[in-house]
Amino acid sequence: MKIVTPTLLINKKICLKNINKMAKKASNNNVIFRPHFKTHQSELIGTWFRNAGITKITVSSLEMAEYFATHYWDDITIAIPLNIRELDKVVSLTKKIQLNIILDSLETANSIRNINSSLNYFIEIDTGYKRTGVNFNDKNKIDKILSLLHENQHFTFKGFLNHNGSNYCAKSKEEIKKNHAIEIEALMSLKKHYSKYFKNLIISIGDTPACSVLENFSGIDEIRPGNFVFYDWMQYKLGSCSINDIAVTMICPVLGKYADRQEIVIHGGAVHFSKEFIINEEGLKNYGQIAEIVDGKWNMPITDCYLSSLSQEHGIVKCSGDFFNKTNIGDQIVVYPIHSCLTMNLMKNNYRIV
Amino acid sequence: MKIVTPTLLINKKICLKNINKMAKKASNNNVIFRPHFKTHQSELIGTWFRNAGITKITVSSLEMAEYFATHYWDDITIAIPLNIRELDKVVSLTKKIQLNIILDSLETANSIRNINSSLNYFIEIDTGYKRTGVNFNDKNKIDKILSLLHENQHFTFKGFLNHNGSNYCAKSKEEIKKNHAIEIEALMSLKKHYSKYFKNLIISIGDTPACSVLENFSGIDEIRPGNFVFYDWMQYKLGSCSINDIAVTMICPVLGKYADRQEIVIHGGAVHFSKEFIINEEGLKNYGQIAEIVDGKWNMPITDCYLSSLSQEHGIVKCSGDFFNKTNIGDQIVVYPIHSCLTMNLMKNNYRIV
Repeated sequence: MKIVTPTLLINKKICLKNINKMAKKASNNNVIFRPHFKTHQSELIGTWFRNAGITKITVSSLEMAEYFATHYWDDITIAIPLNIRELDKVVSLTKKIQLNIILDSLETANSIRNINSSLNYFIEIDTGYKRTGVNFNDKNKIDKILSLLHENQHFTFKGFLNHNGSNYCAKSKEEIKKNHAIEIEALMSLKKHYSKYFKNLIISIGDTPACSVLENFSGIDEIRPGNFVFYDWMQYKLGSCSINDIAVTMICPVLGKYADRQEIVIHGGAVHFSKEFIINEEGLKNYGQIAEIVDGKWNMPITDCYLSSLSQEHGIVKCSGDFFNKTNIGDQIVVYPIHSCLTMNLMKNNYRIV
Repeated sequence: MKIVTPTLLINKKICLKNINKMAKKASNNNVIFRPHFKTHQSELIGTWFRNAGITKITVSSLEMAEYFATHYWDDITIAIPLNIRELDKVVSLTKKIQLNIILDSLETANSIRNINSSLNYFIEIDTGYKRTGVNFNDKNKIDKILSLLHENQHFTFKGFLNHNGSNYCAKSKEEIKKNHAIEIEALMSLKKHYSKYFKNLIISIGDTPACSVLENFSGIDEIRPGNFVFYDWMQYKLGSCSINDIAVTMICPVLGKYADRQEIVIHGGAVHFSKEFIINEEGLKNYGQIAEIVDGKWNMPITDCYLSSLSQEHGIVKCSGDFFNKTNIGDQIVVYPIHSCLTMNLMKNNYRIV
């Protein structure tokens, strides 16, 4: 494997295992599996999902929806509140595929109410994360949005969509389960209420931690996890996956060794990893966990060996003594990224399938 | 100006002012001006430098050197320790342009000692930042590197290169000046010592804060600032520039408004800004400072109005009351990025010159 610069390694076998496991879990629970493709943004990896029977997907921008629509995906949810500056493009896309959008405001409802083509819409609900969404208690606002849109014969109100981002800050599986229970109670109450007026409403939830940790999706109709196809060090630390489920790592060349501080420097910086970090047990920033590469395969991560600092192209690795001693300038080392979605976004033109 | 998605605005007039100001300062001080092109990575912006009389540049990867070499730049320093896995490409590039590399280890010196083509090399010195470089006190190591390389007739030892990254964490102009004085004393002492054995040695320093704050470059032979062409909110807070010197902002559409928490949500996230932040006066993370856009031009930033959180595509803006009230869904707002180099890296295919 002739790799000389920072390169993302994608283990296809692990990706397929992750896809099939989540697909099976969805099927066992009788929920729609609509994976979020923002994680990989890749036509090729899309085909791995298609081969596993997936036909519905989620994206996080209209641009991404357009990209996948040109690659034969014809049922796409854009899971970010509709950008009304892009209405022309939205209308254009509704003529090509089954487009599902989300909204949380009267202004947006007003802007789209006269669109003359087929569109499914969800009302995004905020169950406590406080990013976007109508507060789950605010039926008054939901009523007003629905009253603006329900008379458009081209529109279908699909139901309630939520992204429980709080789960990415959870400290344990129990906390994820507790967050999820609160989320589901709120969404089910809305579904029950509005099902009196609308048929076939669904509840769609999104996050990888909950979808990974839960076995029982009771009350849910659709799941939209994205990160699970790759997982990463953050998800491992959260308890969403085991180390063996992590499907991507970065391979980086060693440029320097500094014995007085037991650090090595790699070519691998913010333009490769992004600047996402987690705080480790000692209260220090960790931008990626280190491992060796042996016979072209990455090893298990090494305790106490992590990326402690990133500049644009340089990464500083804090080393345990043993790893420092056996690593030489010109070697390659492996970094388990903290957040695979952001790393893939930066490396999408520079990866290897292994 | 029909912009519908997150877009980087680059004000050419301000860039030219920044380029000319730094070029003039270099000329007044009789130092070589070798700007760092990692900040913009752009052939077009390169021509703005060329038109200002610049002929020598700095980059932070071999790939970037190859890119600019194909765009008629023929004197390029790669200011990251040489990656010996890329030796073939390095040799190939030495045949096309005047290539200047940096190194800080015997291993790297050993790997390159038999290269049979013209190469200038600097020894990188660490004066206290602790990223890369030979410790400034370690003449023994410098001697060993030189003894490995000085007999190669194709090589020229150019001198000592330093990047004083500590200045990016400085709290005041005085601290920057103090850091700089320590740096220069160390480098001048090395230059004096080794000038007994090598002719025409130079001292090359790199950081935008010092190059912006200092008027007197006494002792320095070459400067390699990069960020100054754009500057950004971080540099403004450091004291490197005034607000009027910031040449880039992001324009982002407003997707949602949340009155209970005086927050708006924009399309503009980690895939647009990176996740660089500074800590504001209240101890909170600031991922970008907010302004209005009026008649196609960005305004001065608004106090207490900043990006408080980023996910992949969403940005949450903490608002002052006035700005919240007058901003509507579907409007566009301006964000002064925290770190323009990383923002440009993400937006390099999606910018507008204004």
